[in-house]
Amino acid sequence: MTSSQHQTAVFGVSGYAGAELARLLLHHPRLRDHAPVFFGRPEEEKGARIALADLHPQLANNNGASGLMVEPFQWNALGEHKIDLVFLATPHEQSRAWVPKLLQHGVRVIDLSGAWRLDEATNRAIYKLEDQDPDAAHAIQQKAVYGLPELHREQIASAHLIANPGCYSTSIILALAPLIKEKRIDLAHGIICDSKSGVSGAGKTPTAKTHFMNAADNLSAYSVFSHRHMGEMLEQLGLKASEITFAPHLLPIPRGIFSTVYMNLLETTTPEAIDACFRNFYANSPMVRWSGTRLPEIQYCVRTSYCDLGFALARDGKRLIVISCLDNLLKGASSQAVQNMNLLFGWPEQEGLA
Amino acid sequence: MTSSQHQTAVFGVSGYAGAELARLLLHHPRLRDHAPVFFGRPEEEKGARIALADLHPQLANNNGASGLMVEPFQWNALGEHKIDLVFLATPHEQSRAWVPKLLQHGVRVIDLSGAWRLDEATNRAIYKLEDQDPDAAHAIQQKAVYGLPELHREQIASAHLIANPGCYSTSIILALAPLIKEKRIDLAHGIICDSKSGVSGAGKTPTAKTHFMNAADNLSAYSVFSHRHMGEMLEQLGLKASEITFAPHLLPIPRGIFSTVYMNLLETTTPEAIDACFRNFYANSPMVRWSGTRLPEIQYCVRTSYCDLGFALARDGKRLIVISCLDNLLKGASSQAVQNMNLLFGWPEQEGLA
Amino acid sequence: MTSSQHQTAVFGVSGYAGAELARLLLHHPRLRDHAPVFFGRPEEEKGARIALADLHPQLANNNGASGLMVEPFQWNALGEHKIDLVFLATPHEQSRAWVPKLLQHGVRVIDLSGAWRLDEATNRAIYKLEDQDPDAAHAIQQKAVYGLPELHREQIASAHLIANPGCYSTSIILALAPLIKEKRIDLAHGIICDSKSGVSGAGKTPTAKTHFMNAADNLSAYSVFSHRHMGEMLEQLGLKASEITFAPHLLPIPRGIFSTVYMNLLETTTPEAIDACFRNFYANSPMVRWSGTRLPEIQYCVRTSYCDLGFALARDGKRLIVISCLDNLLKGASSQAVQNMNLLFGWPEQEGLA
Amino acid sequence: MTSSQHQTAVFGVSGYAGAELARLLLHHPRLRDHAPVFFGRPEEEKGARIALADLHPQLANNNGASGLMVEPFQWNALGEHKIDLVFLATPHEQSRAWVPKLLQHGVRVIDLSGAWRLDEATNRAIYKLEDQDPDAAHAIQQKAVYGLPELHREQIASAHLIANPGCYSTSIILALAPLIKEKRIDLAHGIICDSKSGVSGAGKTPTAKTHFMNAADNLSAYSVFSHRHMGEMLEQLGLKASEITFAPHLLPIPRGIFSTVYMNLLETTTPEAIDACFRNFYANSPMVRWSGTRLPEIQYCVRTSYCDLGFALARDGKRLIVISCLDNLLKGASSQAVQNMNLLFGWPEQEGLA
Repeated sequence: MTSSQHQTAVFGVSGYAGAELARLLLHHPRLRDHAPVFFGRPEEEKGARIALADLHPQLANNNGASGLMVEPFQWNALGEHKIDLVFLATPHEQSRAWVPKLLQHGVRVIDLSGAWRLDEATNRAIYKLEDQDPDAAHAIQQKAVYGLPELHREQIASAHLIANPGCYSTSIILALAPLIKEKRIDLAHGIICDSKSGVSGAGKTPTAKTHFMNAADNLSAYSVFSHRHMGEMLEQLGLKASEITFAPHLLPIPRGIFSTVYMNLLETTTPEAIDACFRNFYANSPMVRWSGTRLPEIQYCVRTSYCDLGFALARDGKRLIVISCLDNLLKGASSQAVQNMNLLFGWPEQEGLA
Repeated sequence: MTSSQHQTAVFGVSGYAGAELARLLLHHPRLRDHAPVFFGRPEEEKGARIALADLHPQLANNNGASGLMVEPFQWNALGEHKIDLVFLATPHEQSRAWVPKLLQHGVRVIDLSGAWRLDEATNRAIYKLEDQDPDAAHAIQQKAVYGLPELHREQIASAHLIANPGCYSTSIILALAPLIKEKRIDLAHGIICDSKSGVSGAGKTPTAKTHFMNAADNLSAYSVFSHRHMGEMLEQLGLKASEITFAPHLLPIPRGIFSTVYMNLLETTTPEAIDACFRNFYANSPMVRWSGTRLPEIQYCVRTSYCDLGFALARDGKRLIVISCLDNLLKGASSQAVQNMNLLFGWPEQEGLA
Repeated sequence: MTSSQHQTAVFGVSGYAGAELARLLLHHPRLRDHAPVFFGRPEEEKGARIALADLHPQLANNNGASGLMVEPFQWNALGEHKIDLVFLATPHEQSRAWVPKLLQHGVRVIDLSGAWRLDEATNRAIYKLEDQDPDAAHAIQQKAVYGLPELHREQIASAHLIANPGCYSTSIILALAPLIKEKRIDLAHGIICDSKSGVSGAGKTPTAKTHFMNAADNLSAYSVFSHRHMGEMLEQLGLKASEITFAPHLLPIPRGIFSTVYMNLLETTTPEAIDACFRNFYANSPMVRWSGTRLPEIQYCVRTSYCDLGFALARDGKRLIVISCLDNLLKGASSQAVQNMNLLFGWPEQEGLA
Repeated sequence: MTSSQHQTAVFGVSGYAGAELARLLLHHPRLRDHAPVFFGRPEEEKGARIALADLHPQLANNNGASGLMVEPFQWNALGEHKIDLVFLATPHEQSRAWVPKLLQHGVRVIDLSGAWRLDEATNRAIYKLEDQDPDAAHAIQQKAVYGLPELHREQIASAHLIANPGCYSTSIILALAPLIKEKRIDLAHGIICDSKSGVSGAGKTPTAKTHFMNAADNLSAYSVFSHRHMGEMLEQLGLKASEITFAPHLLPIPRGIFSTVYMNLLETTTPEAIDACFRNFYANSPMVRWSGTRLPEIQYCVRTSYCDLGFALARDGKRLIVISCLDNLLKGASSQAVQNMNLLFGWPEQEGLA
């Protein structure tokens, strides 16, 4: 396999998802001779250079990473490095402000924040984003592609702006999409999504919530009925707000999401039919592992780039539980971004993700 | 407060719930001069004597516990020690076999196992128990009282056999009882109970499931649609099997249960009405802490004898989530047993449990 | 037992040690009718009143705690409440500033901070404390008693100011004092203290170090050769700085300290002699549990008020390892403070600590 | 890079180190077209075939692993598959019995057990191994090479039997070798090794010690003065038993070893001299990361193939602490085995380990 000519850049490598993204790109077989360029967050534009290995000691000496620097950003760097793809691992306010400028410079963008995932009205309601040039933002939003490869493989391949999905959203949309496509769910009855996430999902900033003393040996629920990721689920699955109830919980583990999704089926169904429904839907999706009635566990998906799915059907053939597990920093963020890059560059979808 | 004349005994103090029960009884203000007698499990009848502090080093020197011994059991010990109350922290097969003999000896029994919690048909189907004397067992079952003080305070006070509830059952029944009493729940729509439990719930025997490497940094679901505790919920709440879906999960923490209970209400309701419903129901229940819309967390109930309850109501006023937290070894087992003892002996319900 | 007439107060109940102190005092049998008065930290003098149960939900409904308030402090409150003992669970700068004023008001003080533990020169070097009235501070320092009951039982009983020891210091001093008293250690050879502490020792303020993502699944060393608690060990044991090497480590657990203390003995010794040395020294110390060659573990001492000690002696009879375990929030802070209060008031040393 | 013609086999892939070894070999760039053959443990010789992904679900769909089977072993399989290198991830009794037969068949062996690490006398004393043919075993032992690449790079390259080091031994030998080579340590004074290991080091069999309830929220010491790995440290470093004290502790984390190594230097030394000593020694060792006075932490080395080393020197310039961290399943077992394979086949030492 020959290395590509593509040059990537990552903005905001200091967070958890950014570190995982750096690791994946540094080991990507197609980028062997083209390590990504790392830039600090835009607001640290004039910041000092810092070694990547000082930010993330686990990356030291790792495939040459020890010599890699995080650079302060300047616009002419895009041309100098011949960058053609930018990953934004920045807060959504910054992604919202920077994407228009980056697109004007002719680079393609994979944005890991929530800034461009939703249609405008929803976006404005949830993220309360203000655009300097609302018309331009509107035009961009129209063309942004929701970067869930299992649903939008083809649009992603030709997109200029890919809005990388949220971690909870990925977990739940993948659990429901096959059943919704086959119109099997009694939507009027409502779907219950009980999700549990590791602490990395709460970000790197130390808070009372992420203090070891509050997170360890504990479980708590938060943002019940009101989590931002609901918007993505509704739009992507074509559901009404009343049709889905979403309660996220904070698990005392570093990484991993486990979603238990409860629903009623319109018709009495066999386990075989459920099995076939998912096998068909994900037949060509290398990053989904369907295990049928063997239920997924966080321990088997964490630190992999897979979304693991399994199910249990009640004896009545009507009540169905789908369980969905993934690593929130990988399939819920950075490996999904790499998967999108692979599609964008015409490489095998799973390249660098095994 | 003067110490009582009652003499208690505990069978099967080697497990986690047994150790907590020993601790509670040793510190109980009414039993100050009457430490319980500890017997090994019946099958270890001829076993050697062992110091309680060797079984549970945390109890050493603890209020005199260092001198306390776990004795092999002989029937005449009941009379010699003038025992009038026996706690059984033994497997359900043993509880089923021993209770008839103990009752014949005139002692009262609080059984922490599942042996006598359910009506006979259900019991037989779930626990597959075989009785030597089915008629006698039938008669006993008829008189056994389900030891959930918040529901059966009066019957408990005069019972001879108290079947101490399961940990999941306690958590879920307490979350639902006030709403069911007021007929607020749309039962036809079904109730979803997503419960998460610490590892002590899986018992002390080392297994692959309780190995640190499988339990830590993990979450898994088990016994979905088929957990034994379902029977108690159905009987106590008067529900049909189709009306409740129960999925337990194993948390990577030592202790604590967190149940997220989802339901639809028959009529649009206000948060104030939900608040009043629970406040009324638990007005005289010292071991339930209702926190309204402030959601309980495991960290605040663990190592207490309380069941903590709170709620979130969707804006539509129809979808309700009740969250219920307790310590599976205390309110889910041993402190509930002490609460039952208090009622049995006419002492304040919360005595020794603050 | 009749309740006492003593009235206690606690300043700074918001931290971890403060919460444990509140819990212990609220359940202390001698204070049944005299719950402590809780004041905010002095700097929050004009702060609002707040319910104790809002600060620490685990204390809700707990022996009446739900009605207890944390009050803003005013000087006349001392007289109004007839307070005769104040616990300071405040930062050392504040303890240093407040103790002179409190003593002037005639109350006795147990200070949980490091402000008064060391002789003046050491104190100034380590804590860099500045006194408004250096002469008065000097006079106070002269009379302060180091509150380690196992070493200074008698002085504590008549002290006006008790400097409650540090958590690491308690663990290591108790491991060494019997051997030093009998002059068994080859001090010229040096003592190695490898200590491991749970995260609560790092305090409640969220920092990168206490973030779950850095603390969980990790171990790190810090303040090697330079930790503040070294000063206490040197003074209390009469050692020179070169004679003791102390390296603290941060454990991924909420509570507990485990110190592995390595030394060479001056003469070849038998296990029996070591055993006798410790048994003699701690014969009248109810809060030390000596387990001989059965090594202590954190799981057995955590949430108890004991310091657990055990040992291993090499076959050569010269190399000795003493292992010392305690709960840093209890014997390392708040239960030690209560133990000191018991001595001060002439009550049994272990009262309220079993 | 062209794939090699070498064919490897792994015996005993069911354990933790075996699973990591399988993962590393499956992703090794030189073995891309030659996946290893997996055999069950010899004692399961006639066992059924089982899918690798059923043993280790995390390996499912992983680079083709989902189709890979663990086969029952038969001797002719060696020839049929043209296997030229066998990894033994089997208990030491089995490794001791099988190595002679495997060598007779002309394959080379990397043994992850302790069966061949020590000279015969020590080996017999520690592992109590009995050989069917003592003379043959003696001859083999003479030629076995201790597989620590940083010390024995050249002998490894031409070895037929490589005894892969123990996890603790690797951690401590790498911390001391540079200082011993330069004769800087006051050996008469003795070296203290306080090591802490994650639970995977205790193996996969469920025991009371590895039960989550005993391992979590705990720390304990074990095998103090008597751990088997001491033998390797003594032989490899040329020390006498009295010169090293080793106390291992069990950490409440899945993986990782942290060794705090205390020693006195013969002469007063500067930090710069220590730094130079290690930099020189490990100049050509790609799998050691020296961080000078920035102390290693488990979080940065876990799931990497590195041994991380750092130090603290007391102000007196005489007391030195070296801290050594590694992942017990990787540099402490399987990645070290792959490093040895790389040397054996003449590939870059770090190939497949970044």
